[in-house]
This record gives sequence, C-alpha cells and structure tokens, in this order.
Amino acid sequence: MAGLVDVYVSSIGMTHFGKRDEGLLELLVQASEEALEGKHVDALFVGCQNPEEFCGLANISTRLASELGHAPRPAMRIENSSASGSAAFMAGAIAVMSGLFESVLVVAGEKMTGVDTPRAQKILTEILTPDERSYGLTMAGLCGMIARRYMHETGLTREDLALIPVKNHHNATLNPLAHFHKEITVEDVLKSKMVADPLRLYDCAPISDGAAAAVISSHGGDVEVAGFGHGTETMAVVDRGTLLSFRANIEAARMAFHTAGLMPTDINVAEIHEAFSILELVNSEDMGLFHRGESWKAMKAGETQLSGRLPINTSGGHKARGHPVGGSGMAQICEIFLQLTGNAGKRQVDGAKVGLTHNMGGFACNNIVTILRGNP
Amino acid sequence: MAGLVDVYVSSIGMTHFGKRDEGLLELLVQASEEALEGKHVDALFVGCQNPEEFCGLANISTRLASELGHAPRPAMRIENSSASGSAAFMAGAIAVMSGLFESVLVVAGEKMTGVDTPRAQKILTEILTPDERSYGLTMAGLCGMIARRYMHETGLTREDLALIPVKNHHNATLNPLAHFHKEITVEDVLKSKMVADPLRLYDCAPISDGAAAAVISSHGGDVEVAGFGHGTETMAVVDRGTLLSFRANIEAARMAFHTAGLMPTDINVAEIHEAFSILELVNSEDMGLFHRGESWKAMKAGETQLSGRLPINTSGGHKARGHPVGGSGMAQICEIFLQLTGNAGKRQVDGAKVGLTHNMGGFACNNIVTILRGNP
Repeated sequence: MAGLVDVYVSSIGMTHFGKRDEGLLELLVQASEEALEGKHVDALFVGCQNPEEFCGLANISTRLASELGHAPRPAMRIENSSASGSAAFMAGAIAVMSGLFESVLVVAGEKMTGVDTPRAQKILTEILTPDERSYGLTMAGLCGMIARRYMHETGLTREDLALIPVKNHHNATLNPLAHFHKEITVEDVLKSKMVADPLRLYDCAPISDGAAAAVISSHGGDVEVAGFGHGTETMAVVDRGTLLSFRANIEAARMAFHTAGLMPTDINVAEIHEAFSILELVNSEDMGLFHRGESWKAMKAGETQLSGRLPINTSGGHKARGHPVGGSGMAQICEIFLQLTGNAGKRQVDGAKVGLTHNMGGFACNNIVTILRGNP
Repeated sequence: MAGLVDVYVSSIGMTHFGKRDEGLLELLVQASEEALEGKHVDALFVGCQNPEEFCGLANISTRLASELGHAPRPAMRIENSSASGSAAFMAGAIAVMSGLFESVLVVAGEKMTGVDTPRAQKILTEILTPDERSYGLTMAGLCGMIARRYMHETGLTREDLALIPVKNHHNATLNPLAHFHKEITVEDVLKSKMVADPLRLYDCAPISDGAAAAVISSHGGDVEVAGFGHGTETMAVVDRGTLLSFRANIEAARMAFHTAGLMPTDINVAEIHEAFSILELVNSEDMGLFHRGESWKAMKAGETQLSGRLPINTSGGHKARGHPVGGSGMAQICEIFLQLTGNAGKRQVDGAKVGLTHNMGGFACNNIVTILRGNP
C-alpha cells in the first residue's frame, strides 16, 4: 500500500549537542546552512519550545529568516512544547503536501544552558498544569511513578531499567554530534544521585543546547516521508486512566501507520523519546513495536541494541545524544535519515529500510510520530 | 480564474476585546466554542504571541485541546509575533488543502493586561533586534519616523493623519465586540499625549485582551479562502531601503493575489494592520489598493469610510476594535467573514463580495495577507 504523504527529505544538518558557547540563533543557522547546502527553499518552519524565557529572544522565525538571507520568503514558528521539533517537521511536510511550496527547510533547536539549572527546571515545569504543579508534581516525579508501576506489573527490576541508559550511552560514543561520549555501567546508574524514586540522575536526559534541520521537498530525495501522526491528551494527569500507556501515543501511532500504509512490524530502527529511561519502554509499547509489558524483555535480551532485531535510540537518545527540548524531534529525524541512507558511520544499522521517530510534548500530552522510508 | 486554495470558512467565534477579567485559556475557549457550535474538528491550530511571558502559561495548544475535550486529536501552536493569528489561519488552511484533515479549528488570542503596562511594553519590544533596541528604538519610534517621512514626501498633514483613528473609532461604535465604543475627534487626537513625534496616544492601538476563532473546512462554507500570502523582511531596520514600503508586504500580497487569482481592484472591504495610524496608509498602498503616496487622499475624501468605495477597518481596526497581539489577525478574519455573509450589522458594507486582511508581524518583518470571497 502506498503512503498518503509523498514528500521527501533531501538533506539534513545538525550541530554538536551539549553545552555550547553559541547562542540559539547561531545554532539554528549552523544546522540550517548545513541542510540547505547553499540552496534556497520556498519557506522556513522553525521549531522552538521557549526562546523567550530561555534566551530573551522573541520573533525567532523572522530572526532566522533574516539571518539566513531567506527573506522575503515565508517563515513560521511552531511550538508544541518538547515536541516542537517534530511538530515543525509535520507542519513543513503538510505545506509541501498541500502543493503550496515545492521545498521547505525545517529547523528546530533550543539553547537551554544560558540560564542556570533551577531556572531551566522552572521554565520546563511550566508545561504541567498549575493545579498539579501546586502539589509539587514534576516531570521526573511523574516518570518515577510510571517506573514503580511498570516494575510492579511486569517484573522489571531497577537493574534491568539501568540497561537503557547504558545502551544509549554506548550508542552515543559512536555519534560524533552527541552530548556525551562516555560509556556508563549499570553500577554507575545505580550509584548516581536519586532524583525521583526509583529514577536516578543517569535515568534522566541532560539539559542541552543544539539544533537540527532537514529540507523537505516534493521532488524526491534519498528518504521518503512515508507518514506522520499526531495526538493529544488531557493536561491533568489525574484525568487519565493509566500511566502505563498514553492516549496521545496511541492516536499518533494510529495516524502515522495509517498515512504510511505500514505496520509496526515494518520498522527496522526507531528513535523513541526517553527523557527518562522508563519512557523508552512505555513509548515503544504504545508504538506497537512490542507487546504490552514485554518491551523490557526484548531490551534485556539485546534486541534494541545496535546489533539487535530493532535498534532503538541509535543516536544515543535524549539521554546521551542530548535533549535541547524544542530541537530533539528534529535530531531524531536526522538520525533516521542517516540510518536509511547508510550514513550512520559506526552506529549504522545493517539494511535499515524503514525508521520511526516518536517525540513527546509535555507530559505525553502532545505527541508526534514520523515514519521515514529509504528510497530503494 | 479559479483560486488555488479551495477551502472554506464555515463558522467563526470571537470574544469581546478589551480589558477582560478572564484568563487567556478562558478567552480561547469562549471563541473556540462559539466557532465550533458543538461540533468536533480534526485538528486545532492556536495562534498566540507570548503566553509564557504575558501569562506564565506554556504548552498552550495542548492546554486548549484538553479544555475543549478535543484530545486525542492533533493541536499545534503557531507563533509569528503579532501575525500569529493569521499565521495560524494560514497553517490551518494549508492543513485542509493538504487533504490530511477535513476540518480544523483555528483560534488565536492574547491576554496582555495581566501584566502592568511597562512590563507589557518590554515584552512587546523583544520582537526588535537587540542591537537596534540598544539605541532605544521602539515600535512607536519607528512608526513616528515613517509618519514624518510620509508627510514630507506626500503632503499629508498631521490633521489628515488624525482622520484614521477618528474613522476607526467611529466604526468600533458599531461593533459590539470592540475594545472602545467612543467617537473621537481630530482635536482629541491632536490633544492626546505625545508618544513618538508626530504620533500621539490616539494614533496607537491599545493593549487588549481577546480571542477569535474560525472553522476551516474542505466541505464548503459561507466564505471561501480564496488565497493567502506570507512574506518576511530583514529584522534590522537599518538593512532596509525605505520605510515607506515593506518587502514582507509586497511578497505577501503578490502570493495572496496569485493564489486567489484576483487583483487588488477586486477587493471590496479590507482589514489593514494599523497598530499605529500611519501604517494604515503604508500597508494599504503595499497591498496595491491605492497608488503609492495617494492612499491618504482617498482616505481624506472618505473612500475608506463605511460608506466609501473601499471601506478599511470596518471592525474599528487595531486602534479601536483592540489589539491583543497574537489574536488580531484572527479578529480581522472574523470581521471579513461577517461582512461577506451580510452579518456585520450596523457596519455592514453593501454588496461586499471579496475581502482582504493584512496582518503584520514584528516591525513589518513577518506579514500575512488573506483573501476571502463570499459564496455566491
């Protein structure tokens, strides 16, 4: 079955992720210029979560258009919390699908280290409901509850869970653009500082700077945008039926596989949002990549490692590639592009033909799934 | 010639504009529910300039989706400074054009009066370049320079310029949802406080709260989205050749008339961004509605009044309908919808068939033009 989308990614660009000296605009320009390869596009879509509060910069899409010499062509910013990057990609793909534009640049990024960590945490926590925030709820706290429940229901142990950051740190050592280039052990994870029981520091993605970009075109390219999907969920966690599955995931996956005309069993490689380790399990089950409550067994058996049946987070994931919030969705797209074009270097997955990215906005309340297919 | 767009506005909703007791979310919900008329749509597009700094609210598209019971359907926020409203409308129209969605809700608004005026001014000024801000440049200062130059080149007098807010305040007395319901005189304008010579307080749009919404559908509706266009310009004013025309306007108008297959002479009614009085002249000339340097003569002759050949800002415009920055573009769309469906009450323009909205982002660096046509 043919996909409904019929647009292509023709090139990508990405900065080093990590604590960077450059400002947000410089990072967006670097990623954009690498993807543009000296060409112009018809329109620009910029994904960014909160440049106003992280950087004191407003009107960021125009700033970037101006800096790139892209004016007078259109430029638009998309903000969907930590799914801003993949939301911008989806908006750009839709604009090419519509026939209005032949090619667009999508670029997404964030500069987070310009403010101190408590201030950054405060900005990040604004995505939760004020009511639930008032009880002291945080993203880490919520993910801690998920981990406890998942462990209770499935038999996952604290040691098993540590294998996820261990795997992702290993992958990142093979990714020159990743935030961290350091192998870690299960013991390192278990000895790291407690953040929200049972989650420790090494279960949590770092605060990072970085940007990533792609050119989407109707004229063909090395990678096809086979499909995408988007779902939302109630903001208040108290209104949800379970913490072990997210309705926004189910809806996004349903729409993505429908538009792509593909099945979860067609996926060869995936980037799954794991700002906290436990999310890699819950999110990959919601994508239909594993049976409910069984992804951890596949992970423990090595199936999600680089050499496994379905490698997950080959880039290093949010944990080790880094997580500049608004930019991470586009970094996932770049990783899958590299995998499908055979350009992923030492972390190349053999014979990868179809890849999936899963990007989570807020506490799983605005999630986007993208399916890319290598051009045979 | 048929338009390229082929999507429709089927219903609208709008709150009272002005200093409102409600918060941003409540205003967005009010406008949305009025437009939705109890129905559901496939996706939600939210335009908002800066809910983070005006209201301490992040992740606004999800918040609204959650509040409306719209989840798990997609919701996306668009931010293009003071053109966020029309940018969201354009993104929504593109999404319906693409075939991905059959109907979408676009809603845009801002809550500005929750912070004090100096703080609001500071937030608004962040849209200018830091370099130029450091010299003390403000939006009002720039518009003052435009006014001086326009007066110098064309013979427009200070008294003539005052006729614009006088006209727009009159129109607003006929618009139940407008911020102000007070006739003003030329003398009132000339006696009001000096803001940026020659512009006085009554040349400047107020700080307002409010929201406006529309449902866009592929299934037909009372008003057709005939076309739209979008243009950008360098952020730094020093890099531009003239202050009497904006490249972002020229590009947006070119694309809008091209996609609509229409000419400026086809326009019967227009909403033109006039956050400062002089902008109504410069922007309407850039739209091709008048010859260069001559719009003021048409305005002085009464051609842009309700009873004139080409009524402009029948809603009261930004000056008197009010200007909740991210929401104003959608308020313009709502006004043209009312005019083209014969529902504009005491301010109805007889026989209006085609209307245009012009929305300016930042200092004319991200501008959007929309052309709507009544369904015959």
